[in-house]
Amino acid sequence: MLDAFWAPSSVAVVGASKSPGKVGNRILANLIECGYEGEIVPVNPAATEIMGRRCYPNLAAYGRPVDLAVVVVPRAGVMDAVRDCVAAGVKALVVITAGFKEVGAEGAALERELVSVCRSHGVRLIGPNCLGLLNTATKLNASFAKEWPTRGHISFVSQSGALVSAILDYAVLHGLGISKMISMGNKADVDENDLIHALSQDDDTRVIVGYLESIMDGNRFLRIAETAASRKPIVIFKSGVTQAGVRAASSHTGSLAGADIAYGAAFRRAGVIRAETFEHMIDYAMAFAMQPLPKGNRVAVITNAGGPGIMAADAVEQTGLVMSSLTPATADVLRKHLPPAASVANPVDVLGDADPERYAMAVRMALQDSQVDMVLVLLTPQAVTQVVETAEAVASAADGSKPVLVSFMGGRDVAPAVRLLMERNIPNYPSPERAVQVLYAMHQYVAWLKRPPRVIMRFPVNRRRAERIIERHLRMGQFQVGEVAAKDILRAYDFNVPPGAHALTTDEAVEAAERIGYPVAMKIVSRDIIHKSDIGGVRLNLDSPEAVRDAFDLMMVRIRQRVPEARLEGVYIEKMCPRGREVILGMVRDPQFGPMLMFGLGGIFVEVMKDVTFHIAPITRDEARQMLEGTRSYALLMGARGQARVDVDAIAESLQRISQLVTDFPEIQEMDINPFIVGPVGGVSLAADARITLRPRRKG
Amino acid sequence: MLDAFWAPSSVAVVGASKSPGKVGNRILANLIECGYEGEIVPVNPAATEIMGRRCYPNLAAYGRPVDLAVVVVPRAGVMDAVRDCVAAGVKALVVITAGFKEVGAEGAALERELVSVCRSHGVRLIGPNCLGLLNTATKLNASFAKEWPTRGHISFVSQSGALVSAILDYAVLHGLGISKMISMGNKADVDENDLIHALSQDDDTRVIVGYLESIMDGNRFLRIAETAASRKPIVIFKSGVTQAGVRAASSHTGSLAGADIAYGAAFRRAGVIRAETFEHMIDYAMAFAMQPLPKGNRVAVITNAGGPGIMAADAVEQTGLVMSSLTPATADVLRKHLPPAASVANPVDVLGDADPERYAMAVRMALQDSQVDMVLVLLTPQAVTQVVETAEAVASAADGSKPVLVSFMGGRDVAPAVRLLMERNIPNYPSPERAVQVLYAMHQYVAWLKRPPRVIMRFPVNRRRAERIIERHLRMGQFQVGEVAAKDILRAYDFNVPPGAHALTTDEAVEAAERIGYPVAMKIVSRDIIHKSDIGGVRLNLDSPEAVRDAFDLMMVRIRQRVPEARLEGVYIEKMCPRGREVILGMVRDPQFGPMLMFGLGGIFVEVMKDVTFHIAPITRDEARQMLEGTRSYALLMGARGQARVDVDAIAESLQRISQLVTDFPEIQEMDINPFIVGPVGGVSLAADARITLRPRRKG
Repeated sequence: MLDAFWAPSSVAVVGASKSPGKVGNRILANLIECGYEGEIVPVNPAATEIMGRRCYPNLAAYGRPVDLAVVVVPRAGVMDAVRDCVAAGVKALVVITAGFKEVGAEGAALERELVSVCRSHGVRLIGPNCLGLLNTATKLNASFAKEWPTRGHISFVSQSGALVSAILDYAVLHGLGISKMISMGNKADVDENDLIHALSQDDDTRVIVGYLESIMDGNRFLRIAETAASRKPIVIFKSGVTQAGVRAASSHTGSLAGADIAYGAAFRRAGVIRAETFEHMIDYAMAFAMQPLPKGNRVAVITNAGGPGIMAADAVEQTGLVMSSLTPATADVLRKHLPPAASVANPVDVLGDADPERYAMAVRMALQDSQVDMVLVLLTPQAVTQVVETAEAVASAADGSKPVLVSFMGGRDVAPAVRLLMERNIPNYPSPERAVQVLYAMHQYVAWLKRPPRVIMRFPVNRRRAERIIERHLRMGQFQVGEVAAKDILRAYDFNVPPGAHALTTDEAVEAAERIGYPVAMKIVSRDIIHKSDIGGVRLNLDSPEAVRDAFDLMMVRIRQRVPEARLEGVYIEKMCPRGREVILGMVRDPQFGPMLMFGLGGIFVEVMKDVTFHIAPITRDEARQMLEGTRSYALLMGARGQARVDVDAIAESLQRISQLVTDFPEIQEMDINPFIVGPVGGVSLAADARITLRPRRKG
Repeated sequence: MLDAFWAPSSVAVVGASKSPGKVGNRILANLIECGYEGEIVPVNPAATEIMGRRCYPNLAAYGRPVDLAVVVVPRAGVMDAVRDCVAAGVKALVVITAGFKEVGAEGAALERELVSVCRSHGVRLIGPNCLGLLNTATKLNASFAKEWPTRGHISFVSQSGALVSAILDYAVLHGLGISKMISMGNKADVDENDLIHALSQDDDTRVIVGYLESIMDGNRFLRIAETAASRKPIVIFKSGVTQAGVRAASSHTGSLAGADIAYGAAFRRAGVIRAETFEHMIDYAMAFAMQPLPKGNRVAVITNAGGPGIMAADAVEQTGLVMSSLTPATADVLRKHLPPAASVANPVDVLGDADPERYAMAVRMALQDSQVDMVLVLLTPQAVTQVVETAEAVASAADGSKPVLVSFMGGRDVAPAVRLLMERNIPNYPSPERAVQVLYAMHQYVAWLKRPPRVIMRFPVNRRRAERIIERHLRMGQFQVGEVAAKDILRAYDFNVPPGAHALTTDEAVEAAERIGYPVAMKIVSRDIIHKSDIGGVRLNLDSPEAVRDAFDLMMVRIRQRVPEARLEGVYIEKMCPRGREVILGMVRDPQFGPMLMFGLGGIFVEVMKDVTFHIAPITRDEARQMLEGTRSYALLMGARGQARVDVDAIAESLQRISQLVTDFPEIQEMDINPFIVGPVGGVSLAADARITLRPRRKG
């Protein structure tokens, strides 16, 4: 699909240069020196020969078809060069040259023109403003990077060219095997979505790793990444997490959902493994590329010293993995082959004088043990430790049936062993904690792979009715939908809402109360008033006609005094809600990833403890349950502290109904049901208050 | 103090050996090869000469005084060897030999004998079962480690010999400068406390770093570490954090306080910088040894690429440090010297083609800027980057006025630069995140250094009265102090407690209620009933003589039915408490560090959210306030969500009173005041329920 980029049969360097130090020189040299076996075509009108190869004034002059063109001419010449390339029928273009979108409006205009020329000819474009790309499988180095890594199965996509340099430099020192490395630059055409999709179908790539500062199209990302992650692991390090700041929001849900939370929810949904730091990114990449996936969460640790064993066990327990209980059979064999002072429990301590065979035996036993899902081998370079030989023995014992990670701790002595381990596809980590973090990421990915099929429930609802209400508001330019209308919409989606009626006069209010039955609540109705209770617009527990009458008259007088400019539209008389556990259900539409549902326990849990979870809609029943279980306060719903267990299924179903509502109506920008009162299991749950914010309908 | 260990004028190797591969051979060779300039005395009855040096059958035969003896004879010969050494007047002993406490009871007995022989002669002992020690300042390598590090100012003490090997191996590869390295082995005599104390007075040591699995004497540690930390930073990596499990506890406080929480509280109190992982330990050590402390929390970042700059800014904001706003003057100079495309805001982007001078200029400007407290320099090895020259330029620009850390990201290309930076005392970290974590640790340490003087308030209390009650319980073997007596103790320490009276009959109960005033609560009194409300032993809001009478009779009948074996001692009639914010105040005595005070908001906050803080008693007013502020729910006390602000000073004072009480009475093992009802500011706060657990008084 993007094959022309990494497996072209010919590559032109447009702007190839004779002068060492120039980018156009470096790229041509890289192509030649790294051993690319296709045709290499230098293009430069000012030269007839570069590095012993004939140089052409343009691609037309070359006369034969070219798959990939790398453009490095100065910015002023880029458009002409690109036109020349597309005219000559190139399939793929990499524009190295900078000075486009990243420098302002003029550059952005030029960049749009570039894209439009390419698209009109069906040519894909990487860049501009990038380092280029490389593919070790085809020995293609179409970049001006200084280093050429070992062949391997990690493919990197990076929004930062500098980071590509750093990773290559790292890879070269540590023998990290790379398949493809793509610097995306300004992502004018080809972006992370295209690359993730293409790499997911590339057999040479075992893990896709990305460094991203932004995502171009959130919805497409969700679709593509989820499909790709089902085929192979995707590790993404997303920076800029604290930049976005708090967005303007009119709901609780909106004010709690930062951009980083949206990325987190999107990655979780799509099965993307999130690297929290640069080092984790490389740590995860190594293991996924080199080792099989674990089948469960039980870790066996083998060590030649107590301290590192404790560190590993600490880390295992802290992440939520489990230290295996080795089977008695394994313990017996270990006891037979290890000195009496050795520990045959987990961590298995093979002692400070362990020779390579002792290590190998312990690794083999752990791999055979049915109680073990992953093996972590630790080594400290002690007086008699044969470091390299032990590395060799461990690598030979690892049979690919279960993941084996190692942490050979130290520096000078262990360096050759670490190198050997990398060559033998056993990833080494500088500390036990780092290795355990990787095991945890592997386990999490497997858990995602095993998730049940995503079945989105479609409830029978009165969609037309909701549509009419929304329509009416939009027509009147009323983007805030007040409680009464919001509850009408919820009713249409089969939420339980307390019975209520709109009343314009004192008499109507009393009539409504009589009909509904006491006690009732009275709430002011006014499109100009959002926070009703702040200005005395809510009265509760009115239990007689007199109380209703007094409340109505008083409310009208007082609110007219307090908010003279508000247009009052009477009151809403509503049956008092039963008491129950209050939760908040909400949604805010993320500009990147669309509707994000929120759940939290009401009041302090949301406002003070920020104990909420988010999930991208539409959601399944399982995902709705996960949202509940993801809060720290979940135990309260399940009956902690002797309280009655509440109807968590009712909450989960309500979240699914909100999911359906906001999927049906992209016009809904934000909404809160706050509080949603949850009844006992089998009882009634109610949306006690609600607010919806609309946005102008999209054209087209 | 322990000078004989690291600056001896002569060293004996008792058990020196001719056979390569033997520990006694390695140690002698290490002493000779590393250049120790004092007298080296091989001792071995089976040899007359080893490595060209005269060998003695014992120290008596040597005839001259020896400062330090390193014992490596087989276990069976250790006692004799040690007796020979102390008889010959050695000042300090290192016993390398293993097979003592770590192998069981017999070894432990032998170890005790060893210690007793040493102590009776005033000789200090390191080990047994250790790797030995080294001191680069005196070129003393009295260990069997394979590696000899560069001279520097980090001193390590380790409870794991294997970890010493790993750190030395790391140090040798990375040029990490070490002053002293001590393997403590079984810590039979010299332990971490002795070493921290001694190293705090050692001018060659700039930072004390410890790897610990346990602490021998918690109280002494607190005292010594706090004094030492006032002189120089102490970094400790404590493993075994999840091992301890939950201890048996009869109070809320007890069940929430794991051993790791106690270590955390102890380190916080003593100003010890806690390393969460092995890598953090080394990361922190480097910076503290090589760079000055920051004066504030404002970070300037200088980078040659956007991506790493964003990573650093993310990390800065996440830790709670602050990205500096550079002064306009700085920005002007930067603008003048940097290309137009460069960013002169923070992060300062010197661009991908930055030469060494551009970096140096930016570093100098940041160091001069009054808005900057610390400088972080990032580099990616791009096409034209002069990596080593830039390292040199940055090192020269760093003038020691403010901490300068660097992260040269990559591998092969940056390796020589990293080496040079280490030599020039500029610590390098593999990623921006790691460096920022270090800056944060430095800032935290400085905050601790600047803490106000610790003044412990002594409240005038009726200590005698509390003592009598405790005395009475202990005499009767009653270690659970029930509500009534516990409240008497609290009253003696001037807590507000609701008025109440003990009543044995229906009539007495009514009389008490009349005297106290309605409404009242009635609570069963029985030494055999701990959870009163579970068995119907609590009735609230009794508002008339009839209600009291009915409640008393019913309670007696029912409890006799439900808990026939309980000895009933009447009821406690108590004035109903006013409503208010409920908090829980508690204490549990940690076996290592003594009384740990706990604070949390009542109910779900403690039981479900585990939102509590701990501090080691005695505490100051500031520390009490920090305990409140350290909870996530603190905002609720300060009037979040429109609630009245409560009297936080009353809580803080109560914590100080508990602190005084539990310091006065080591017999108090655990206590809870739950709930403590906090009134409005200036109002009344009350200990509404209380429970105290005693422990048998210590002999002597």
